[in-house]
Amino acid sequence: MIYFFFLHHGTEKQMNILFLSDNTSPADPRVLKAVEDANIGYAKSYGNDIWTAEADRLFKQEFGSDTLYFPVLTGTGANVISVGSVLSPFHSVLCAETAHIACDECGAVERFTGSRLVTISTPDGKLTPEMLAPFLRNPGFEHHSQPKVVSISQTTETGTAYTADELAEMSDFARSNKIILHIDGSRIANCAAGSSMSLKQAAKGADIVSFGGTKNGMLMGEAVLFLNPELAESVKYVRKQYGQLLSKMRYVSAQFIPYLRDGIWLENADSANSTARMLADGFSSKGIAIKYPVKGNAVFAHLSDEQIKRLSEEFAFYVWDESENLCRFVCPYTASKADVDGLLTLI
Amino acid sequence: MIYFFFLHHGTEKQMNILFLSDNTSPADPRVLKAVEDANIGYAKSYGNDIWTAEADRLFKQEFGSDTLYFPVLTGTGANVISVGSVLSPFHSVLCAETAHIACDECGAVERFTGSRLVTISTPDGKLTPEMLAPFLRNPGFEHHSQPKVVSISQTTETGTAYTADELAEMSDFARSNKIILHIDGSRIANCAAGSSMSLKQAAKGADIVSFGGTKNGMLMGEAVLFLNPELAESVKYVRKQYGQLLSKMRYVSAQFIPYLRDGIWLENADSANSTARMLADGFSSKGIAIKYPVKGNAVFAHLSDEQIKRLSEEFAFYVWDESENLCRFVCPYTASKADVDGLLTLI
Amino acid sequence: MIYFFFLHHGTEKQMNILFLSDNTSPADPRVLKAVEDANIGYAKSYGNDIWTAEADRLFKQEFGSDTLYFPVLTGTGANVISVGSVLSPFHSVLCAETAHIACDECGAVERFTGSRLVTISTPDGKLTPEMLAPFLRNPGFEHHSQPKVVSISQTTETGTAYTADELAEMSDFARSNKIILHIDGSRIANCAAGSSMSLKQAAKGADIVSFGGTKNGMLMGEAVLFLNPELAESVKYVRKQYGQLLSKMRYVSAQFIPYLRDGIWLENADSANSTARMLADGFSSKGIAIKYPVKGNAVFAHLSDEQIKRLSEEFAFYVWDESENLCRFVCPYTASKADVDGLLTLI
Amino acid sequence: MIYFFFLHHGTEKQMNILFLSDNTSPADPRVLKAVEDANIGYAKSYGNDIWTAEADRLFKQEFGSDTLYFPVLTGTGANVISVGSVLSPFHSVLCAETAHIACDECGAVERFTGSRLVTISTPDGKLTPEMLAPFLRNPGFEHHSQPKVVSISQTTETGTAYTADELAEMSDFARSNKIILHIDGSRIANCAAGSSMSLKQAAKGADIVSFGGTKNGMLMGEAVLFLNPELAESVKYVRKQYGQLLSKMRYVSAQFIPYLRDGIWLENADSANSTARMLADGFSSKGIAIKYPVKGNAVFAHLSDEQIKRLSEEFAFYVWDESENLCRFVCPYTASKADVDGLLTLI
Repeated sequence: MIYFFFLHHGTEKQMNILFLSDNTSPADPRVLKAVEDANIGYAKSYGNDIWTAEADRLFKQEFGSDTLYFPVLTGTGANVISVGSVLSPFHSVLCAETAHIACDECGAVERFTGSRLVTISTPDGKLTPEMLAPFLRNPGFEHHSQPKVVSISQTTETGTAYTADELAEMSDFARSNKIILHIDGSRIANCAAGSSMSLKQAAKGADIVSFGGTKNGMLMGEAVLFLNPELAESVKYVRKQYGQLLSKMRYVSAQFIPYLRDGIWLENADSANSTARMLADGFSSKGIAIKYPVKGNAVFAHLSDEQIKRLSEEFAFYVWDESENLCRFVCPYTASKADVDGLLTLI
Repeated sequence: MIYFFFLHHGTEKQMNILFLSDNTSPADPRVLKAVEDANIGYAKSYGNDIWTAEADRLFKQEFGSDTLYFPVLTGTGANVISVGSVLSPFHSVLCAETAHIACDECGAVERFTGSRLVTISTPDGKLTPEMLAPFLRNPGFEHHSQPKVVSISQTTETGTAYTADELAEMSDFARSNKIILHIDGSRIANCAAGSSMSLKQAAKGADIVSFGGTKNGMLMGEAVLFLNPELAESVKYVRKQYGQLLSKMRYVSAQFIPYLRDGIWLENADSANSTARMLADGFSSKGIAIKYPVKGNAVFAHLSDEQIKRLSEEFAFYVWDESENLCRFVCPYTASKADVDGLLTLI
Repeated sequence: MIYFFFLHHGTEKQMNILFLSDNTSPADPRVLKAVEDANIGYAKSYGNDIWTAEADRLFKQEFGSDTLYFPVLTGTGANVISVGSVLSPFHSVLCAETAHIACDECGAVERFTGSRLVTISTPDGKLTPEMLAPFLRNPGFEHHSQPKVVSISQTTETGTAYTADELAEMSDFARSNKIILHIDGSRIANCAAGSSMSLKQAAKGADIVSFGGTKNGMLMGEAVLFLNPELAESVKYVRKQYGQLLSKMRYVSAQFIPYLRDGIWLENADSANSTARMLADGFSSKGIAIKYPVKGNAVFAHLSDEQIKRLSEEFAFYVWDESENLCRFVCPYTASKADVDGLLTLI
Repeated sequence: MIYFFFLHHGTEKQMNILFLSDNTSPADPRVLKAVEDANIGYAKSYGNDIWTAEADRLFKQEFGSDTLYFPVLTGTGANVISVGSVLSPFHSVLCAETAHIACDECGAVERFTGSRLVTISTPDGKLTPEMLAPFLRNPGFEHHSQPKVVSISQTTETGTAYTADELAEMSDFARSNKIILHIDGSRIANCAAGSSMSLKQAAKGADIVSFGGTKNGMLMGEAVLFLNPELAESVKYVRKQYGQLLSKMRYVSAQFIPYLRDGIWLENADSANSTARMLADGFSSKGIAIKYPVKGNAVFAHLSDEQIKRLSEEFAFYVWDESENLCRFVCPYTASKADVDGLLTLI
């Protein structure tokens, strides 16, 4: 099974796009301020600047002193560089069928790494050791791509999240099978906030993390974090080859400084998550079924044809799976109770 | 779901490997004779020889006058060059989850083309337009790999085959969706023989065919056939880049001459198929369930643990899916009734 | 021959890095202001925003109404996406041995496209039809990569530039050989300013342009411009696969608006170029030989060992070719006469 | 500089192609006999057969007991698999501008590995440590592809050969720079025979060898030899992904058995080389200049326009470099004194 994405948009009037995705939101003014403050004097290029050094220090503070920080520009960039740094072309990446890396990156991993993505069907976007085990038989059989990385999303593309116990199980499983564990954390802030975890807890056991900034208040910018620094031997070349070694890197790193230091990540994620819960509760109170537990800022609801029609006159959103009228609503950190109420009154 | 392959082999005594795969068999003496006859004088290299011209003529005779013949060396070669000639790296290939191109070529297509293989779950190795349709929504959406090729196997990896009607449906569907239809015909001879079709009928509607020779009596050698010659613009470069432009190509083409001209393909396939039917009938008569209809030379049977243990003391074979004790037996063209009887008596 | 890069940097005291590269400079305050102004409300992601539409309009104004604008993030991104949109893996790109695309992108083109870069020795970084012609013999010979793109830099990596006549010759040559002409214009503003050309004139005859913004006053951001829109069929997928489809694209496009509309590109380039001329004149007046005509903001000077030693105590710069003590100085748009005087007094 | 290839061929009458390339020759009857002898009974596929085991033993005998033998199908296959087994996509291969791997494989290495080929100008097809040294500066600089392999040809594409001392120098240089030394030995038999070396001596110091069989009397078949077995970790996957893991591998390995065991390699190479020397002497005696020392079976001669015209009425050969009327003649092992005399009388 696969999910399909449909964008409903009006043609004659301006629609409200705030629930379409969290990447439609503007940047947090405090983050923008940091960019302005960094715009002074000359700085060594390619990340050899003091803002990158400071962001590195802050990431070490959040994730542990072994952490290595590699700023990049986009979510696809973070994912491709994360797994591309540790894959040979005869390796494979195991991931959920719904994973962004498999569904929404136009085959970027396959093209850039030559490796195979093996997609696994899941009930809710989350993998388990039981689901993975069958794919690890016959190591060394040259007719098969060799599994090297398991990539999970935290939160997942269906808005669910791995608990601390589930993460530990996955990590143990990966370790004992000599598999590298990658977390696509484009919404890891929403996960940590939603599960009352620190960022470190939300990524515990991972070797490499795609750490998202863009969706939660930055202008742009993600980080590839090596929690296991022994795996970082190739990353600098891979980042350069993938065109994400920005010369004026200070403008990415500067954003991460207040984002981490001042807890902007948590504040914004909390805000987005709480709006999502409001929306889910509102749907429920109107008898609309919510498909997945709301662990972050995404809500998946089964709407009727009539409801979809009515809502889509004013709001843009994705019908995630047409076959079951499953609709996705993502709350940006800037969404308000009034926005939610506005949507709910249309139903 | 995925199929797993286990090779049971004895360590202390020589086992009978004839049911392990049809590629364990020797070459047909008539094919070998053709190689010997071609070993005379100088010949232009890289396929500009008279044997290649003659094989081209014979393939046109079998598949139609528009057919273009590109000799290659291995099955993986035929598949990679077939799809690699028409794919850009942002394209995808749709195929059954069980397809050889997806399961057993170590990610060769992904590595060489950069394209994505989208694998689709099927009950018996065969795709239908209904299974494919959902994957063709949202053309032009840049976040998704763009489906460009549907690859089917004839016979399939589970020993089933598309009927003439099924092929026509697939072909119509492909055409109306501007999708290229590729047939992995590493056992197309067994398919044609088993369905009383000509080779042309067994591939009807396909744009490109991987035509197998190795498994059915050749020393080595496959052909990439462009039934739709308009798609062949890049193939000569792709074959060269994939290292399959043999300098002394006469030794491949020469084998195809008697193979096609003298009906060796049909004679050998008939022989292999009839042994497979004997084996399936024998299993059935002993109360052993056959999983898939036997359309070619492969038999998939559910054996008990005890039966597997007993058989594997003398015979090598694959346990295709451990979870259901599904075992695969493939009959080479050289297998005899005595071979089948020998195996059945062990049960 | 190949050029080698050595970074001289002090270890104990802060050095002046302003002549090291133009990418060490801060952003122009007017460009930063545009980012701030764009930071309002929700915007459709992935370039479907009003800033991108406006930047597209402005690029059409500069380069012609057929121009298609694809914002990207880095110079390597612009180059890889430009050529990657029109190459198949059996094609080659012809470029100068000194081209950035060949020397300084860690093999990004080869890795992402699979194509071959054919590097051609030049006296001054500029190609001519005469240099290219020998590489275009034997079209269709399957043993050779097929030349498809000629990539030139304007200004070149040695600080030289193609005149209008030279561009016309290259363009005629490309057209008559069915070759696509790409311009790496990471410093095209400096070229236009230095040659009293419009941007359009500086790129005349090109099919695709990597248009640089970062080095001349933007925070980050480049544009892939298709002057020949018929070649743009694949670019949207290629940009996505190469990880440069920023979700919040408004923050790149917004920068281009004042940059183009208010002539910031010209003002800054003029400033950088005039400082470079001052520096070159200063070197000359001290008897130091300038290797290449100074057409933009880069100066290549033959210094003595003693001069290198003395300068590198206070300034960071590249010794471009150790074998001839050739040193590169690049003037950012923020450099001043005082900066130049400061450097010259050390000699 | 680059060499260009022109095939002169008649259109109305059959031309003599024997000097065009050594790959136009038929197989040695003793090699063919080995194929016939191997065509008996069932054999484990994919190289797990007794012929492959015996060939492995014989290669160990020739090259040393650490040698690992991987049979492949074509020369491009041997080269791509050799270097592809040890390269990451951010690595580069250093080779002569005239190397087959750079000139005549249609960019196969770049496409399959993503790595960069750095081509170095040489006077005679041979590299020296002095030529290589400049390319090894700045290790670890992420803007440059990282040199990992030096690939040399023995004999070279210009018919020259490395002496034992030159090989030792190259090997020492490679070792001390942590560079892997690859030999393209598609004509290593001609090299060994021509220099009175054993095969082992002709490859001394190499880590990986592409060992040629096709040009010197086999039907087809080359071997990737790992003289340094520590580098062989990935080769089995790489060979499979590159489509050269033949299922019926016995038909390749069987050829190598008499080829090595019975000294066919030496006998045939001696014959080819001596014909080449006759040809070179004949040219010289007619006042025709020979460009490169004749160390194997290739002769490069400067012919006049008139001589080229006259010869090409009866013989096919390559005009290697039009600009200097440089013509290549390659003697297959089957060439005779009469063949040489026939050609010389035309001059």
